[in-house]
Amino acid sequence: MNAKFISLDGIDGAGKTTQLNVIKQWFEKQNLPVQFTREPGGTPLGEKLRDILLNPTSQINLRTETLLMFAARQQHLDDIILPTLNQNISIVSDRFTDATFAYQGGGRGLPESDIAQLENWVQGSLRPDLTILLDVPLEIAIQRIENSREKDRFERENSTFFNQVRTAYLNRAAANPKRYAIIDSSHDKESTKAQIEHALNQLFHVK
Amino acid sequence: MNAKFISLDGIDGAGKTTQLNVIKQWFEKQNLPVQFTREPGGTPLGEKLRDILLNPTSQINLRTETLLMFAARQQHLDDIILPTLNQNISIVSDRFTDATFAYQGGGRGLPESDIAQLENWVQGSLRPDLTILLDVPLEIAIQRIENSREKDRFERENSTFFNQVRTAYLNRAAANPKRYAIIDSSHDKESTKAQIEHALNQLFHVK
Repeated sequence: MNAKFISLDGIDGAGKTTQLNVIKQWFEKQNLPVQFTREPGGTPLGEKLRDILLNPTSQINLRTETLLMFAARQQHLDDIILPTLNQNISIVSDRFTDATFAYQGGGRGLPESDIAQLENWVQGSLRPDLTILLDVPLEIAIQRIENSREKDRFERENSTFFNQVRTAYLNRAAANPKRYAIIDSSHDKESTKAQIEHALNQLFHVK
Repeated sequence: MNAKFISLDGIDGAGKTTQLNVIKQWFEKQNLPVQFTREPGGTPLGEKLRDILLNPTSQINLRTETLLMFAARQQHLDDIILPTLNQNISIVSDRFTDATFAYQGGGRGLPESDIAQLENWVQGSLRPDLTILLDVPLEIAIQRIENSREKDRFERENSTFFNQVRTAYLNRAAANPKRYAIIDSSHDKESTKAQIEHALNQLFHVK
């Protein structure tokens, strides 16, 4: 079984959309089967929950929000991620559980141990083989959000929130450097692309 | 603080709707403040989740369903149940966590310990002061469902399912007889009413 489970994560404005294309091109070039998906979402139920979670008018408390994220994730794992990996097709998920530790934990202050309990309840021992963490200084991320689309319920938070989210991502990656590739996506696109390709080459033992 | 947290539970067709009126009349007669609510639901978010959970066209896996039940419950506790009790107003909830143990546990086979983990995550040590468990033989319950409204995603299950749900309710009540009042609601309405009034009199020390 050579299929791998890869997640792409990072604060809003870190450039995930652009880098998903880099990853797509890498898989095409290597001629390796892959399926792209996202969280929250990835299933019909998950997309319904995504609408509720991201809608700025939704009234959702922190612990409820966390349970909803994991409910969407459970369905995503059972219906998409695990069956795909079992067919020996790699999965690239735009966000996964690191986002819950970063946003609900770092950003909103839910204790890490509370999140870890739900992580184990939903995932057992399953973790991504590789998490590509896109990192940019806060000012760049915020500027990118300001210039882009209409802001969702998370993107409306203030810079203190995003600073805590970013710190939580970096701390998680630092605590487990083997699973994470921290990629500075504030510089030129070619440099970011080269770093992502390097991480994928290593994961799949491509020379 | 004299306010009490009461849940009314039992298999579909046990007659909850009728007995809610008995409870309402008892509180009116005693002139005690009370708020009625229901699960899944009880909050704007909870009612949205209720629609998803009960809709026969929804594709929801067992573990996801359980997380969604507890997500709705978390919001219900934080926004309705605890603030109401803190104002010294009693709460009567049409279903609570016993329903999760009975339907997702007994009916669908999720291990009790998995449900207990989420119960503790969401509720801490909070449990109802009294759970009125309406019990009827399966044939009566099924006949009542058949004759009534359009069936939701749970009511469409078969008699084996409902038998397991009923057994799970009775086992939970038997294991903790102080918290539960098991009330046989298959006989005449006056007898059921008298049993419910007796349970409420005991809880509030009414002579």
